Amino acid sequence: MPERIDDLQRHGYKLIQDTERFCFGTDAVLLSGFAKIKKNETALDLGCGTGAIPILLCGKTEGLHFTGLEIDETLAGMAERSVALNGLDEKISIVTGDVKNIKNIFKTSSFDVVTANPPYTRRGGGAVGANTAAAKNETLATLNDFIAAAAWALKNGGRLYMVHRPERLAAIINILSEYGFEAKTLRFVQAFAHSKPVLTLVGAAYRGRPHLNVLPPLVIYKERGVYTDETHAIYYG
Amino acid sequence: MPERIDDLQRHGYKLIQDTERFCFGTDAVLLSGFAKIKKNETALDLGCGTGAIPILLCGKTEGLHFTGLEIDETLAGMAERSVALNGLDEKISIVTGDVKNIKNIFKTSSFDVVTANPPYTRRGGGAVGANTAAAKNETLATLNDFIAAAAWALKNGGRLYMVHRPERLAAIINILSEYGFEAKTLRFVQAFAHSKPVLTLVGAAYRGRPHLNVLPPLVIYKERGVYTDETHAIYYG
Repeated sequence: MPERIDDLQRHGYKLIQDTERFCFGTDAVLLSGFAKIKKNETALDLGCGTGAIPILLCGKTEGLHFTGLEIDETLAGMAERSVALNGLDEKISIVTGDVKNIKNIFKTSSFDVVTANPPYTRRGGGAVGANTAAAKNETLATLNDFIAAAAWALKNGGRLYMVHRPERLAAIINILSEYGFEAKTLRFVQAFAHSKPVLTLVGAAYRGRPHLNVLPPLVIYKERGVYTDETHAIYYG
Repeated sequence: MPERIDDLQRHGYKLIQDTERFCFGTDAVLLSGFAKIKKNETALDLGCGTGAIPILLCGKTEGLHFTGLEIDETLAGMAERSVALNGLDEKISIVTGDVKNIKNIFKTSSFDVVTANPPYTRRGGGAVGANTAAAKNETLATLNDFIAAAAWALKNGGRLYMVHRPERLAAIINILSEYGFEAKTLRFVQAFAHSKPVLTLVGAAYRGRPHLNVLPPLVIYKERGVYTDETHAIYYG
């Protein structure tokens, strides 16, 4: 298992990753910049993998406590070791378990915020690699499973923040409605100012009022290889 | 009734408008640039007002025939006079009637394409002016009424193109699903490359397959007062 330790560029936090499996990427960093977690709030990351999102959010926000739920025991173990490595055992809990089994893991209405970077490819919608399968494809849990789990875990008025592919946006909005969410904030991520978006960041409120705020696009590069000021701030700010 | 005749910048086509009522704007021009109407297809514009969209589409596309449906007799009369002024009587029909009464006006499955620039403000959602009421507010027909009418009028696989405000996007996507549409193309319109979008262009297929293509934003100005090349081409190209 070829592990490496990456610097999260945030309070010197480190993350243990396995280079032969899915490593956290831009998606997780952008989601951690998009999610708003207020002072004393609690947050749950669904499918946390090696724990990048809880650790980043712990560094970026004044949240009280962060939980990561991960079905894969090896990944959950790496996440736990990263939490310990950063001295964050009191702030972050890693739980090994299935998003689809959430009703037996957490009480309903127990979190202020849920974050999720769900698998992007529809079940049966793409080639499935040996090691990255569950993180990239809906082999274990679908978009529907993630949103249903968030609806269970969140308090009324609680917020769900997700990152996904733009081509799934209509499905995301429909499934959100089905589970009692109202899409509240939308932000598309583009490589350049005039590019097609490659990711979409979606903020939704459980039992919220209808009003969608579409933000200006999040543009990653001002020129080839040079981050915009905003992206630089999300990574290093 | 202070009428004026505007140049549509397209084959020398003119449009009769009443300056005390709602005049067509950027929205109609952008929608006419976004809607794809192929050779020999037929198109219906729901709530056509003074007929800007059918006349623009007639100039921009190889569509076979265009119909405009308008509830307001005065506006429908102006649209008819504009059609005659441009010598387009064989290409464009203006029908006076209510979007909500479409089942008694057109046979079902009779158009390849439907376009709509529906009122933007939710019923009860804003101040209602005396003359622009029906065009800007949902006093006569709601978003739901427009999409229901499109579902009636379109053939299976037919396309609906709409322009609306970004804050209504979640409602648009949900109502589209409810009436058997699949959102297929989405394009946000921004004043500048880094601005918040002010309009959203939505393309949907009736009984289509799920796959949403989010296009690069349509940026209107490259600097204050100077159109981008793309906007210039939509207006004058």
